[in-house]
Amino acid sequence: MELTFITILDYLGTFAFAISGIRSAASKKFDWFGAYFIGLVTAIGGGTTRDVFLGVTPFWMIQPSYLVVTGIALLFVIGFGKWVVKLNYTFFIFDAIGLGLFTVVGIDKTLTLGFPMWVAIIMGMITGTVGGVLRDVLVNQVPLILRKDIYAMAAILGGIVYYFSMKIGVNSITTQIASVISVILIRVIAVQFHIGLPLMRDIPPNSKKKT
Amino acid sequence: MELTFITILDYLGTFAFAISGIRSAASKKFDWFGAYFIGLVTAIGGGTTRDVFLGVTPFWMIQPSYLVVTGIALLFVIGFGKWVVKLNYTFFIFDAIGLGLFTVVGIDKTLTLGFPMWVAIIMGMITGTVGGVLRDVLVNQVPLILRKDIYAMAAILGGIVYYFSMKIGVNSITTQIASVISVILIRVIAVQFHIGLPLMRDIPPNSKKKT
Amino acid sequence: MELTFITILDYLGTFAFAISGIRSAASKKFDWFGAYFIGLVTAIGGGTTRDVFLGVTPFWMIQPSYLVVTGIALLFVIGFGKWVVKLNYTFFIFDAIGLGLFTVVGIDKTLTLGFPMWVAIIMGMITGTVGGVLRDVLVNQVPLILRKDIYAMAAILGGIVYYFSMKIGVNSITTQIASVISVILIRVIAVQFHIGLPLMRDIPPNSKKKT
Repeated sequence: MELTFITILDYLGTFAFAISGIRSAASKKFDWFGAYFIGLVTAIGGGTTRDVFLGVTPFWMIQPSYLVVTGIALLFVIGFGKWVVKLNYTFFIFDAIGLGLFTVVGIDKTLTLGFPMWVAIIMGMITGTVGGVLRDVLVNQVPLILRKDIYAMAAILGGIVYYFSMKIGVNSITTQIASVISVILIRVIAVQFHIGLPLMRDIPPNSKKKT
Repeated sequence: MELTFITILDYLGTFAFAISGIRSAASKKFDWFGAYFIGLVTAIGGGTTRDVFLGVTPFWMIQPSYLVVTGIALLFVIGFGKWVVKLNYTFFIFDAIGLGLFTVVGIDKTLTLGFPMWVAIIMGMITGTVGGVLRDVLVNQVPLILRKDIYAMAAILGGIVYYFSMKIGVNSITTQIASVISVILIRVIAVQFHIGLPLMRDIPPNSKKKT
Repeated sequence: MELTFITILDYLGTFAFAISGIRSAASKKFDWFGAYFIGLVTAIGGGTTRDVFLGVTPFWMIQPSYLVVTGIALLFVIGFGKWVVKLNYTFFIFDAIGLGLFTVVGIDKTLTLGFPMWVAIIMGMITGTVGGVLRDVLVNQVPLILRKDIYAMAAILGGIVYYFSMKIGVNSITTQIASVISVILIRVIAVQFHIGLPLMRDIPPNSKKKT
């Protein structure tokens, strides 16, 4: 039952990530296959990068449901494009759920393989954010999540919640739920109140020449 | 003898892929080394990605012939730039041969390592197409093969031919040849008759803001 | 003592690479986290790619000092932006030291794992240059080091110095020092005297169409 609930959340998150990739592809007039490809990279790119770094077989090569969920997302955008726009806020919530869940899945998997907590927190962040970075690189845009909003930072803060929750002896399931909810809340609050990190000031770009 | 023939096709495909990368680099005025680098990534990027996902040592680290073929491709473009343009159709055919062969090599290697058929078909597609995607990302363009023409789709259809051919009991060599030829024919027919997948309609790009 | 000296050089190189990434991010108005992310990818991207190809755990997952050095680089750019510009030549020297050191670290690690010399030379080049390529891709620019200056070529020439030094029986430490110094000198001389490889002539970009 618990597993089923997490699986549903996992698919919701995958669906939301795939939708965001497919929408980016649509904005550049990709064909259907290209849109599917970008959607898939957005949905599984983070977890794949994590698994390559951890030295294990990428998760989506073990069971095909992520490919299927991405396919449904493609059909949804093709068939109900207008709805997608109207459901903007719903997808934002799904995306936040996905970020939270992917983060915790990444942390758990890394700890299970015997790495220390600081590696796990980074892997959680990678799981949640690298897909979005790859999406933006593939449609030839500067990665959005590196320029504004609390996004990767929400994943890292969720990882710190995970750490302290474990540290004070909270059991595993509660720790995971607390961490997921933290990420979602931080995302929602940051967007609601336009909270972001300071931007870098523009200094002349790096030059290899001597002055 | 059979092996020799396949090796020649493999080098032809590598040569064609490298040429397409070097030409992209030339259009952006890269220096000779940069052009070699882009040519190499185009030629070996797909197989390298496949091998990283499969957890084996990238194929070009085991024998250096792919580096040599790419070097010859560079000299060819530098020395015979005009010919390359005149030989456009020849290179298109080499590229189609490369796509077909790389696809089947990817499928075979994946099956040999014990993965199921659906993973093998995806790995065949990755072997044939990721090099071209990396090429376009490195020269700062939206990946061409994700926007138009049947390209990745040809690799997937070739994988499905492979599957059904094996399913009905055709022997291994014939299955491989049938699959390679399918990919080449699909590519040639698609380009000849301007057959492509439908394009996505432009809906407003994804926004993380609530409406 | 020797180890300490090399460690200091390693951190100087990491610092210089991180600074160059953070400056690129600043020029695109990334937020602080985005700048840290780009700085980190620039500093560790090459070694990470090498380790993934070699099939070992990425080096920065084993000890966190590279994350700390990148953090210091971020604080430095935020706090002393003007100094960074004034110190342009100093950072160019640090960057050259980093390139030399990363190259030799890459070569050593590859040989230790039992690969042949030609693979080691390529891995040295990858260690020294892929971080800069990823930096440019992430800020949506055509990779600088593929277009001008002797950069990747300096890493390869350093690898060739390594090879011949070993070949004529020079001991391991001297070989490594000779190789690092070669890379640094080649970089400095190439930039000082504006020495570069020839550029590719522009021929029409690759077309998948027949003529």
